[in-house]
Amino acid sequence: MDFDPAKATAATVEWIRDWFDKNGKGCNAVIGISGGKDSSIVAALCVEALGKDRVIGVLMPNGEQSDIDMALMLVDHLDIRHYIINIAVAFNSLIEEMENAGVEPSRDTIINLPPRLRMSTLYAVGQSNNGRVINTCNLSEDWVGYSTRYGDSAGDMSPVANFTTAEIRAIGRELGVPSVLIEKVPTDGLSGMSDEEKLGFTYEVLDRYIRTGEIDDPATKERIDTMHERNLFKLRYMDTFKYEG
Amino acid sequence: MDFDPAKATAATVEWIRDWFDKNGKGCNAVIGISGGKDSSIVAALCVEALGKDRVIGVLMPNGEQSDIDMALMLVDHLDIRHYIINIAVAFNSLIEEMENAGVEPSRDTIINLPPRLRMSTLYAVGQSNNGRVINTCNLSEDWVGYSTRYGDSAGDMSPVANFTTAEIRAIGRELGVPSVLIEKVPTDGLSGMSDEEKLGFTYEVLDRYIRTGEIDDPATKERIDTMHERNLFKLRYMDTFKYEG
Repeated sequence: MDFDPAKATAATVEWIRDWFDKNGKGCNAVIGISGGKDSSIVAALCVEALGKDRVIGVLMPNGEQSDIDMALMLVDHLDIRHYIINIAVAFNSLIEEMENAGVEPSRDTIINLPPRLRMSTLYAVGQSNNGRVINTCNLSEDWVGYSTRYGDSAGDMSPVANFTTAEIRAIGRELGVPSVLIEKVPTDGLSGMSDEEKLGFTYEVLDRYIRTGEIDDPATKERIDTMHERNLFKLRYMDTFKYEG
Repeated sequence: MDFDPAKATAATVEWIRDWFDKNGKGCNAVIGISGGKDSSIVAALCVEALGKDRVIGVLMPNGEQSDIDMALMLVDHLDIRHYIINIAVAFNSLIEEMENAGVEPSRDTIINLPPRLRMSTLYAVGQSNNGRVINTCNLSEDWVGYSTRYGDSAGDMSPVANFTTAEIRAIGRELGVPSVLIEKVPTDGLSGMSDEEKLGFTYEVLDRYIRTGEIDDPATKERIDTMHERNLFKLRYMDTFKYEG
């Protein structure tokens, strides 16, 4: 791969600036800051594009978040305005309301409700601060559907959705993001396992497959292809009936 | 207009059935029931397509809802399973968290946060009941952007997004939905005003303009065109940077 991090960074910064010129002149970029690499690097890109005064970081722990110091390190490093909004009471209340109504929350519900509440919160902060919500999904995660529809996969614009994990890390280094944030092992913060442990393959293998089509293990190829196909619906507008009369 | 309600109803029912065959065989349709015409008629369409045992109504008042009896009338009429899940504690908690963090919630936030919490709740119920979330937006409302992005405009599929208000009412009559629900004046349940009072034109004028391009008042035409253009972004996937590098 002949990926040039400096060129890719400059092009992304320019796209962000153009997008805001057209879709929200003078507006602020609102970003959920998790402490992971994607939100850290996207925030750094937005600071580069818009200046630090137009970037707002929102930290949204669900109760206690063990690695919230990583998120705080990022907003300190970029010197951006930030808010901490805990979603625990909202989350617990909806789960309790469901149980009282006779619905047993499934494991998927426990995993996907917090990202949707975070999306709701990001828009609330955005709508109260002349903001636009920035999506932080990357190509590798999107490829296998590692996101929640209308949760972390939502947003008004998506600057790094076509960069692999490795490419985003290279952009992060280009921007001088602290390496502890760039190299942080991706987890969902729920299961205690890393993404790669749960996926059963590494992002390195996945990135290579995406960019070159090459992969050594046929079973892994099969697994990736299946996940990819099953999750494509998340990357488009919902299905709509067009009555032809 | 030569709109044939019987034909349109049959076609929509068939599309819903096909969609479920392809995208969720044996799954349940999960619908937020507001007591208004759209959710009532969409629920009736789903019952026709899937049978009443595969349709789940979710009532989501934000505290006290004065017209919740209308929503209850609908689920009684269709004889479908329903859950009442109050979003008030979740809503109030997020607003309070924002205020404590130093963010003054704007009027738009107060209007748009509840639909996003309802979307989150619908997916939570869906993911706990082998469900797919049904969108209930119609063409007239979508035309002028009368919906909340990632709130009531979300869903897995949208069966009536290409029918005007008048056409949906005709479908409702075709399905025998109680006329008090079909004729209910649309409101947001917040401002005490009807949609038409806030829009400054009637749905009849809007529907005619959409279907024939004809409209009497040039100022109204201008107003509709501006709203339409400004809100088109809600009807497509968010903007994404495609690096060609």
